[in-house]
Amino acid sequence: MFRLTTRTRAAANLSPFKALRLRGYASIPETQKAVVFYKNGGPLKYEDIPVPKPKPNEILVNVKYSGVCHTDLHAWKGDWPLATKLPLVGGHEGAGVVVAKGDNVNNFEIGDYAGIKWLNGSCLGCEYCIQGAEPNCPEADLSGYTHDGSFQQYATADAVQAAHIPKGADLAGVAPILCAGVTVYKALKTADLRPGQWVAISGAGGGLGSLAVQYAKAMGLRVVGIDGGAEKGELATSLGAEAFIDFTKVPDVVKAVQEATNGGPHGVINVSVSPKAMSQSVEYVRPLGKVVLVGLPADAVVDTKVFDHVIKSIQIRGSYVGNREDTAEALDFFNRGLVHSPIKVVGLSELADVYELMEQGKIAGRYVLDTSK
Amino acid sequence: MFRLTTRTRAAANLSPFKALRLRGYASIPETQKAVVFYKNGGPLKYEDIPVPKPKPNEILVNVKYSGVCHTDLHAWKGDWPLATKLPLVGGHEGAGVVVAKGDNVNNFEIGDYAGIKWLNGSCLGCEYCIQGAEPNCPEADLSGYTHDGSFQQYATADAVQAAHIPKGADLAGVAPILCAGVTVYKALKTADLRPGQWVAISGAGGGLGSLAVQYAKAMGLRVVGIDGGAEKGELATSLGAEAFIDFTKVPDVVKAVQEATNGGPHGVINVSVSPKAMSQSVEYVRPLGKVVLVGLPADAVVDTKVFDHVIKSIQIRGSYVGNREDTAEALDFFNRGLVHSPIKVVGLSELADVYELMEQGKIAGRYVLDTSK
Amino acid sequence: MFRLTTRTRAAANLSPFKALRLRGYASIPETQKAVVFYKNGGPLKYEDIPVPKPKPNEILVNVKYSGVCHTDLHAWKGDWPLATKLPLVGGHEGAGVVVAKGDNVNNFEIGDYAGIKWLNGSCLGCEYCIQGAEPNCPEADLSGYTHDGSFQQYATADAVQAAHIPKGADLAGVAPILCAGVTVYKALKTADLRPGQWVAISGAGGGLGSLAVQYAKAMGLRVVGIDGGAEKGELATSLGAEAFIDFTKVPDVVKAVQEATNGGPHGVINVSVSPKAMSQSVEYVRPLGKVVLVGLPADAVVDTKVFDHVIKSIQIRGSYVGNREDTAEALDFFNRGLVHSPIKVVGLSELADVYELMEQGKIAGRYVLDTSK
Amino acid sequence: MFRLTTRTRAAANLSPFKALRLRGYASIPETQKAVVFYKNGGPLKYEDIPVPKPKPNEILVNVKYSGVCHTDLHAWKGDWPLATKLPLVGGHEGAGVVVAKGDNVNNFEIGDYAGIKWLNGSCLGCEYCIQGAEPNCPEADLSGYTHDGSFQQYATADAVQAAHIPKGADLAGVAPILCAGVTVYKALKTADLRPGQWVAISGAGGGLGSLAVQYAKAMGLRVVGIDGGAEKGELATSLGAEAFIDFTKVPDVVKAVQEATNGGPHGVINVSVSPKAMSQSVEYVRPLGKVVLVGLPADAVVDTKVFDHVIKSIQIRGSYVGNREDTAEALDFFNRGLVHSPIKVVGLSELADVYELMEQGKIAGRYVLDTSK
Repeated sequence: MFRLTTRTRAAANLSPFKALRLRGYASIPETQKAVVFYKNGGPLKYEDIPVPKPKPNEILVNVKYSGVCHTDLHAWKGDWPLATKLPLVGGHEGAGVVVAKGDNVNNFEIGDYAGIKWLNGSCLGCEYCIQGAEPNCPEADLSGYTHDGSFQQYATADAVQAAHIPKGADLAGVAPILCAGVTVYKALKTADLRPGQWVAISGAGGGLGSLAVQYAKAMGLRVVGIDGGAEKGELATSLGAEAFIDFTKVPDVVKAVQEATNGGPHGVINVSVSPKAMSQSVEYVRPLGKVVLVGLPADAVVDTKVFDHVIKSIQIRGSYVGNREDTAEALDFFNRGLVHSPIKVVGLSELADVYELMEQGKIAGRYVLDTSK
Repeated sequence: MFRLTTRTRAAANLSPFKALRLRGYASIPETQKAVVFYKNGGPLKYEDIPVPKPKPNEILVNVKYSGVCHTDLHAWKGDWPLATKLPLVGGHEGAGVVVAKGDNVNNFEIGDYAGIKWLNGSCLGCEYCIQGAEPNCPEADLSGYTHDGSFQQYATADAVQAAHIPKGADLAGVAPILCAGVTVYKALKTADLRPGQWVAISGAGGGLGSLAVQYAKAMGLRVVGIDGGAEKGELATSLGAEAFIDFTKVPDVVKAVQEATNGGPHGVINVSVSPKAMSQSVEYVRPLGKVVLVGLPADAVVDTKVFDHVIKSIQIRGSYVGNREDTAEALDFFNRGLVHSPIKVVGLSELADVYELMEQGKIAGRYVLDTSK
Repeated sequence: MFRLTTRTRAAANLSPFKALRLRGYASIPETQKAVVFYKNGGPLKYEDIPVPKPKPNEILVNVKYSGVCHTDLHAWKGDWPLATKLPLVGGHEGAGVVVAKGDNVNNFEIGDYAGIKWLNGSCLGCEYCIQGAEPNCPEADLSGYTHDGSFQQYATADAVQAAHIPKGADLAGVAPILCAGVTVYKALKTADLRPGQWVAISGAGGGLGSLAVQYAKAMGLRVVGIDGGAEKGELATSLGAEAFIDFTKVPDVVKAVQEATNGGPHGVINVSVSPKAMSQSVEYVRPLGKVVLVGLPADAVVDTKVFDHVIKSIQIRGSYVGNREDTAEALDFFNRGLVHSPIKVVGLSELADVYELMEQGKIAGRYVLDTSK
Repeated sequence: MFRLTTRTRAAANLSPFKALRLRGYASIPETQKAVVFYKNGGPLKYEDIPVPKPKPNEILVNVKYSGVCHTDLHAWKGDWPLATKLPLVGGHEGAGVVVAKGDNVNNFEIGDYAGIKWLNGSCLGCEYCIQGAEPNCPEADLSGYTHDGSFQQYATADAVQAAHIPKGADLAGVAPILCAGVTVYKALKTADLRPGQWVAISGAGGGLGSLAVQYAKAMGLRVVGIDGGAEKGELATSLGAEAFIDFTKVPDVVKAVQEATNGGPHGVINVSVSPKAMSQSVEYVRPLGKVVLVGLPADAVVDTKVFDHVIKSIQIRGSYVGNREDTAEALDFFNRGLVHSPIKVVGLSELADVYELMEQGKIAGRYVLDTSK
């Protein structure tokens, strides 16, 4: 059968406001709980703020759970070379239910599950958007940065960019996939490896690293994990790493990684943003191999020796967050049960405590906030 | 400098209608001239119809010129396995000026030049849209097919899909690029050739073919043109073909093409939809080469011998119309003066005559309609 | 450390003949057992013939086991449009031990395990060889076709093309990987799919099909098997197919495949060479999908409707046998235990019986010949 | 017609020595003129040495002309982290005539034109060779480095790697293509750009740079040249650069390049190995763009800011020398007259003077040695 069908977008004749009332969402409150800060590094206030109204192209999502990412910490502190909106509600790993939508929204229905991502919306018209690189859009609107994010009970998102989550999904479990999962999955795609090739995950025992190990394995890759400590090694191995290099134990990380992989991994995912670890990855990567940078440390620099870079014909590739397709694919691996996200759920009101643990480097896995608490 | 900037989409607070009045477009008429048909194959009426109102995501374009494409003929006749809207205003190569826009449109300003393409709009949410293959969207809205097209003075288009044309461009000359140009450029991209490789253009002396020759040359390819008659050969050669095979003259087209290209072209663009020509292309293509099908004959079938297909490791690739990026690139080649479009301008009211010439196979180059006549 | 090292190829100063004697291979006999035919379709004689002498660029392999492939049947019958050498020793899935080598051979040592592949050697200088497409070399030398193959106890192979098999491998088990395994692996690479996408294996329950299912799964793909009969379905499912379509049971194969894969598989591997099955694959493949032809039926033709081919933007790709890299990779999957080859071992002297079963279509899995019997 | 043909490599029964005599090359002398050095940095002696004998896989080339490359200077000085053979005859851009060949050579005939490249030969069996990355072979044999090169009248080369030059070519003009041309062409391929995209050539006015400008233009790219001085600007522009940035004139190179290219070039070829220039290229490259490193400075390091690298999603790619296919393609552009090599011819005996000019940075274009003088 022929696939093209006459478009049947029923033009909605109702305003969002009417839609809400008519469809029984009289229960959408006027105000909600949120964590807000009024200046970078200032107090994180758990308070009541108005529920936002969706624009014609937006959905309103009743956020049930939201993951907490290092980027949220940077947004609060304001230490990146990009100003945040102020006051700001942070958060960009929000999973919830669509409760209202603008007139122009055709790809979500009320009641659908939806995800709030880092990329809230983009212009759709620039050279980056038209090649599917919306995260690189100069007009990118960023959840929890330039657009109030998922650390509130009701958040808006451009329907084109919002993630589709299947009904019945575990909303707490899926939350970290929306940024952490998509980001490592995109990094693995950026490494452009073939099933059967070796990939090193530098920082394999952390929150992103453990996701990266699982995605890599599901993609048919052979994984060598790199991290510090036996516990992290056990985690990485249990998730599918064939080899693990404990940098606190081996005298020469470069040599150890190359031996474990019979000449160096074909690709490296630098989840760790330690400058030393990133520089080592340029050394141990296999000739013709690809080193992927994916973290966003405010100041780090990677050095590469031109002579070796050329003779070995290696590449250093930057990978930012995923686009719509990457998101759908990363979620599909999760939905099929191939990737599990180790999470700890606490209340939205406890966000300040989570940031404190994060700054102390005490978090393994991902904290997820329950917006009802 | 850092490229991300805080998004500054000024929310328009005016309805499209107000916008028109306030911005001085009191001159947008209530009615306009158009060519309409009420049943497939029925009379083509040149008559007055209402000017459409743009939706929040749409622009209203004052179409100055519109190319006429074989697809328009199919739409009118209704001989494709896909129903058209009825009554219908055809046309999908419209070049003009933006005179109004919906509230949600951020990427066009009033007064910009814009192009109406075959793909008027798509859902932006399906698996095809999110990979940049919007033309394959099952909900694709098609100008001059499921959405009134460019054979009228004022037409609407989804702002995401509408083409950007630089100010000062020759609107009559650019019109055929919007479908014919983009289509052959996309076909050349689909062939995935390297500069210096040979490409055969089957049908090199016709309207699409002559564009294909020029694009191929601008892409650094070596062109062998195939068509019938000395005049077509002279045209192809003058546009950059290094070799020309006149199928009315040579006894063995397959052999002649292979000799001219030292073993067969690395790619073939089948602008001609003659089943014989398409089958020959599968034979003369070089081992590992790619045969691109791009025309849309209602019934044609291509046969390929499995044994040869495998041993020669060739590919037959279907190429439909271009997406937003292909369109921008195809227009860029035109804007830079690398591609010229041989056109003949007549009045919109003369469309029926153009269709008659088209059915008689008497058109070389492209007819372009002036909507003011 | 810097990887380039000064080349240390010790120039061998001995003739092959001397090498054999000096290195203790006095045991290489003057004659050996082989199956020979003197005209296409003529008697298959199990007889004594001389042991061949390797040229400077060749190795001499003591073949322990050889798989039997449909191509061997074609070679014997002579029904392909390519003449065989006569008289001919067939076979191109030979696994054994290197017992001698020419002066110019640097990449094999006496005692290494080696594989005799379909591509025995190529010119290394033509446009196909220099792009790594040696199987497409016009001067390709083919084991069991233009070069005496593996249905003998001692066979020669160009050292550049011969396969490296790790010491300790199961030589009977690895034999079918050398052609059947490499061929389906190459076809899967030709389909160019991403982990998580759907691939249909048409003929999933046969010898090649069961290998294809396993490779696909190891590559992170989702597999829908297509074949006839419950037994084949059980086999495919047990090897990793998520869905199975029994064409003897479902009324509409195209519809069933599309439903099982939520819109059609992204790729199809046509192990079955039934023209009907191949034509159906062009219909059920997902838009933008890739249909791979890989079998070599003498006469089959595939039809494709141009309109659908273009609108769906699908591709029909021919995949011949693998090159050196494909071979190394396909063997690596086998060596890592991810792919198992269901074989039945009989004596070399029983080849005629195997051909008879093959012609009757009675073989599931692969027959492997023990050259000592 | 079916392309496979039965291989007809006539086995040569003559030793190389006999071949020479019988084929009338009695005129191959026992000794020849060459420039030799006995220790790194030691005297460059123009003296008589024996003519080498080709191995079975080698051709003997009567070198007529040889280009002089910076690598030759490094080889002589011994300042790279890789030991040269000693004593050594340098040179790896030798163009001449095949005068003898080994028994195993099938792809050259006596009298053919051949080129001596940097990669004299490789193992053909390692993971790099089997993927077509022979220059990365750990056993790579390098002309003028680990194998006596083209600064002599008769040089040997592995026939698989030697370049094919068409009869009648200008042997002096083609010489620099064999390394300089291939290297910049390979770098352009590594940048992986589409026709119509912008490429910056950093060092556009020098010997390699002027070749890069021409190749880029022939590949349909838009070129912005970067170099110092009006003369270099005129050269670059005359060869096809659309824009030229004179770093001695503009206050802000990064800004100037981005303005000239409407947002930064999509790719950069760093022919210049100035660390500052290379670091700037990482800054001015367009988001998603690719910076190619291609020179081999002994000590230079490139820094990249991780944050920008990730947000802009750029890549730094190392490009070494071309393989057989790259060489054939680079030569094809030259043979078709699309690339001209600005050379100055002097006698082989004057090599020491050329090195002196080179160290003084006084060479624009390429010196080519006439081995007869």
